[in-house]
Amino acid sequence: MKIYDWHTGPYPARVRIALAEKNLQSRVQFVSVNLWKGEHKTPEFRAKNYSGTLPVLELDDGTCIAECTAITEYLDALDGAPTLTGRTPREKGRIHMMNKRAELELLDAISVYFHHATPGLGPEVEVYQNAEWGRRQRDKALNGMRYFNGVLTHQSFVAGEAFSMADITLIGGLIFAGLVELPVPAACEALQAWYARMQARPSVQNRVAISAPADASV
Amino acid sequence: MKIYDWHTGPYPARVRIALAEKNLQSRVQFVSVNLWKGEHKTPEFRAKNYSGTLPVLELDDGTCIAECTAITEYLDALDGAPTLTGRTPREKGRIHMMNKRAELELLDAISVYFHHATPGLGPEVEVYQNAEWGRRQRDKALNGMRYFNGVLTHQSFVAGEAFSMADITLIGGLIFAGLVELPVPAACEALQAWYARMQARPSVQNRVAISAPADASV
Repeated sequence: MKIYDWHTGPYPARVRIALAEKNLQSRVQFVSVNLWKGEHKTPEFRAKNYSGTLPVLELDDGTCIAECTAITEYLDALDGAPTLTGRTPREKGRIHMMNKRAELELLDAISVYFHHATPGLGPEVEVYQNAEWGRRQRDKALNGMRYFNGVLTHQSFVAGEAFSMADITLIGGLIFAGLVELPVPAACEALQAWYARMQARPSVQNRVAISAPADASV
Repeated sequence: MKIYDWHTGPYPARVRIALAEKNLQSRVQFVSVNLWKGEHKTPEFRAKNYSGTLPVLELDDGTCIAECTAITEYLDALDGAPTLTGRTPREKGRIHMMNKRAELELLDAISVYFHHATPGLGPEVEVYQNAEWGRRQRDKALNGMRYFNGVLTHQSFVAGEAFSMADITLIGGLIFAGLVELPVPAACEALQAWYARMQARPSVQNRVAISAPADASV
C-alpha cells in the first residue's frame, strides 16, 4: 500500500496516527505530495482524488481511497486489535458521530480559517479566499474547543471510555490549531489535559518522523 | 428508538431511506422538529445535538446519535442484510470515501448555497449569511454533478456495483438540488438515469409519507 501525504499535514496526521495505533506502518510506503507547491491540486493528483486533498491510500491494484474516515475504516477492517471505529452498533454510532463533530466543529473549521483568512499555502495555491467566512470558522472552532472541553470533563476520551478514531480527529484539529497559532482557551482545562495525554502516545509523538522528505523544512 | 427529523428535509431523507432499505421503520417513532420555525436551533434541541442539525436518533436509554453517517453505521450494525456500509475492508473504504465525497462535493455544498445565497429557512433562522460563499458552493455542486455523472458512466452505483450508503447520500444531494431548483445539467445523462432508478425504489418513493405531521405543508 502507498500513502500519498505531507509529513506535517493535520489531515495526514490522522492516518499516520491510525497506522501506528494499528501497528501497520511497515505495510505502507509513503509518497510525499508537497502541499506548499500545490502538488495536491494538479490534474495528475486529482485523478487519484477528485477533491484534491491529502492523504490518499493507494492499494496494490491501483484502487485509491481518499478521506481520512474512509482510510481509517479500511485499515480498521484489515486487522482486529485495537479497534478504532467501534465493535457494537452503539460504539460505531457514537464514534462516527464524535468523529464527524470533531471535523465539523473544529478540524474542518480551522482548515477553512487557514485557507481563507490567513495567507494559507500562499497566493499560488489559494486562488480564491473569503476572509469573512474564514474568520467565522475560526470563531466556530473556538466554540468547538469549549464544547469538547465539556465532553472531556465527563469522560476520558472523545467518544467514551476508550481511544478511538474520534480522538484522532480531535488531535488533528489541535495540531492544526497549533499550526495557525489558535491556542486552546485557558479555561479549557479538561481539553488541555486530554491533549497532553494524547501527545504522550507514541503514535502521536512519532507521526512526522516516520516519513519526512529529506529536503523539507515545513 | 426515536428519530427527530423533518419529513421533507434532505438530510432526514438519508436516514428514512436507510431505515426502509433495512426494513427497520417499525422499530422507530418519528418526532417532528420544525425546521421552518428553527426548532433545531433551540437550547433544548442542542442538548440532543450540539451542532443543531437534523436528524438525530435517540436510543431507548436516552443516548443521542447525530450525523447521518453515524446513524447509518448504527442501523447497519443492528442487522445483517442488506448491508449499506460494506463488508470487506475495500468495500468499507470505498463506500465511506464516496459517501463523504457526495457530502463534500454535492449535498453539503447545496446546503450552504441554500442557507447563505437564498432566503433559506427565513430571516428568523438564517441569522448570518455569506452570499458569495453560498454561490461558490452552488458552483461546486454543479461540478460535483458532472463528477458523479462520470462515475456513473462506468458503474451502476456510486461506490461500485451494489447499492450503498453512498447512493443514499447522493440521493439526498439531488433531493436538495430539487428543493433549491438547481437542475442536473442536461449533459449528465448517466446521473439522470441513475437518479430515475433510485427514485423508483420504495425506500425513496415513500420517504416523506412515512411520517409527515398533519399540519405541515412543506
